Amino acid sequence: MPEHGGNLDLAVARFGGSAQDWIDLSTGINRQPYPVGELPPACWSALPSKSALDALHVAARKAYGTEAPIVATHGAQAAIQLLPQLCPAGKARILGPTYGEYAAVFSAAGLQVTETSDLDALAGADLAVVVNPNNPDGRRHHPDRLLALLPRVGRLVVDESFVDPVPGLSLASQAGRPGLLIIRSFGKFFGLAGMRLGFVIGEEADIAKLAAMVGPWPVSGAAIEIGARALSDRAWAQATSARLSRDSLRLDAQVAPLGWSLIGGTPLFRLYETGDERAAQDRLARGKIWSRIFVNHAGWLRLGLPGDEGEWARLSAALGKF
Amino acid sequence: MPEHGGNLDLAVARFGGSAQDWIDLSTGINRQPYPVGELPPACWSALPSKSALDALHVAARKAYGTEAPIVATHGAQAAIQLLPQLCPAGKARILGPTYGEYAAVFSAAGLQVTETSDLDALAGADLAVVVNPNNPDGRRHHPDRLLALLPRVGRLVVDESFVDPVPGLSLASQAGRPGLLIIRSFGKFFGLAGMRLGFVIGEEADIAKLAAMVGPWPVSGAAIEIGARALSDRAWAQATSARLSRDSLRLDAQVAPLGWSLIGGTPLFRLYETGDERAAQDRLARGKIWSRIFVNHAGWLRLGLPGDEGEWARLSAALGKF
Repeated sequence: MPEHGGNLDLAVARFGGSAQDWIDLSTGINRQPYPVGELPPACWSALPSKSALDALHVAARKAYGTEAPIVATHGAQAAIQLLPQLCPAGKARILGPTYGEYAAVFSAAGLQVTETSDLDALAGADLAVVVNPNNPDGRRHHPDRLLALLPRVGRLVVDESFVDPVPGLSLASQAGRPGLLIIRSFGKFFGLAGMRLGFVIGEEADIAKLAAMVGPWPVSGAAIEIGARALSDRAWAQATSARLSRDSLRLDAQVAPLGWSLIGGTPLFRLYETGDERAAQDRLARGKIWSRIFVNHAGWLRLGLPGDEGEWARLSAALGKF
Repeated sequence: MPEHGGNLDLAVARFGGSAQDWIDLSTGINRQPYPVGELPPACWSALPSKSALDALHVAARKAYGTEAPIVATHGAQAAIQLLPQLCPAGKARILGPTYGEYAAVFSAAGLQVTETSDLDALAGADLAVVVNPNNPDGRRHHPDRLLALLPRVGRLVVDESFVDPVPGLSLASQAGRPGLLIIRSFGKFFGLAGMRLGFVIGEEADIAKLAAMVGPWPVSGAAIEIGARALSDRAWAQATSARLSRDSLRLDAQVAPLGWSLIGGTPLFRLYETGDERAAQDRLARGKIWSRIFVNHAGWLRLGLPGDEGEWARLSAALGKF
């Protein structure tokens, strides 16, 4: 199973404390989450109704700017797990380096998997994957370039898990075109990763197949309630996008004196070349701040953004110890 | 897609009101749910950790009386959706009549599906399914009879979604035997169907395959927190089992004057022969009580148990109108 950010178990095992002591910047999850608020008891007790799920789909379509068929999944990861069933045999090509679960899930399902760093080399794949903007390096692809690739592959999966604060990059308005599948994550931008909610947007036949695979109750009552509420709150989304953009530059400025250089990033996370990623991670960990390093990429360290001023102060103190 | 209980959309469309106006007795979900209580904010904001998921598995194993490998799923339904991938081609035989999703999911996956009412006729199947106790008729199979069947099928799925209040029927202590897969539902007995939590217990190789299919975050942070708490609360489980057993007899007594006869049931629901299921459902619906009828079984009406005394009073008033 691939490594992941968000694995505080590892931080605790190596550096002590309990999970609550840590500021987890090892992911790209917004640390100022959408307020959960009051939940009606029926969210917990009743089977989620079809009408409530439909309302969630309507809210998601509106937020994402699409009228194409959509299906809610138990997190974006759950959508990834289903992809091999849409395309049970054949050549998968993944634009890398990127989120490790694509290669892991596809290989486990018996697909022939190639990773390439060249977008054009995806042509000819039965199943091509582009994460846009990319995790962990923030690499971006203009929607027109992806649309040009679309007819040259069987299916093009565009994972837009980190696109919310840079919506101009999204291909959601083009969803419905043959072969195009867009994956959206709810939990990263809205800071509610534990809730497990994601979406796939695509052409009718594929979305119908995915809907049959996830069954009648694909997401929890709480995910439906909170998801519909949050996705309809465009004022919160705009304010959050603006804050994340400012704060990502603040983070870059804060680490610059250490000689870390920005490789790339999104408003939700930054990837730095640190020269010595283990030393960098260890120093942050002594201040109980967890970060992400990558086995095959010496020097790289990925850092999410602190949430409130208390977290920024702890980061500043930890960085000061260098 | 098969019909289901819990479809209040249909009740509202046919008889009016809003979902909150209705008492939904169309399912076998306990209407006195386990108290959700306070949830730590990290349940929502953080990716569920491996250690928390492990703790949930430990609590479930203890509650179910097994030491066999186990995997949490996003509801028992999510487990059913995965079964065809364990057994991608072959003959599936289902002991019926029963929960409609087995036949629907297996057929959609291309399995050859037969339904039989004779337990011995399951022999020879690559994938055999027995719901014990059965939904909707409460039919029960002694664990020894199921163990005798086990070597005569490829895999035997025993769906124990309604076994919690009759734990003597459970085969969980035998899980780990080759070919045996046990599905448990959390939401029905604990009254938290909207939370989406279920489990599969079985031999190591199968559970490892299922764990790979569900991925690293199979259930929500709230499901892990509440699930672990509820499954460890054996006093609540014992009191609830006792109450459900009493209340199921109370329900039988309440409908007896109408001439409805008990076909069978469990402490969570009852199946009655009403003579005219549409008339029976309509009368209950006029009191905003929703029930379940079955297209292929004239006369049958399934009824869950009311929760508090207010609900019993409304049921009594609705029944009085006959």
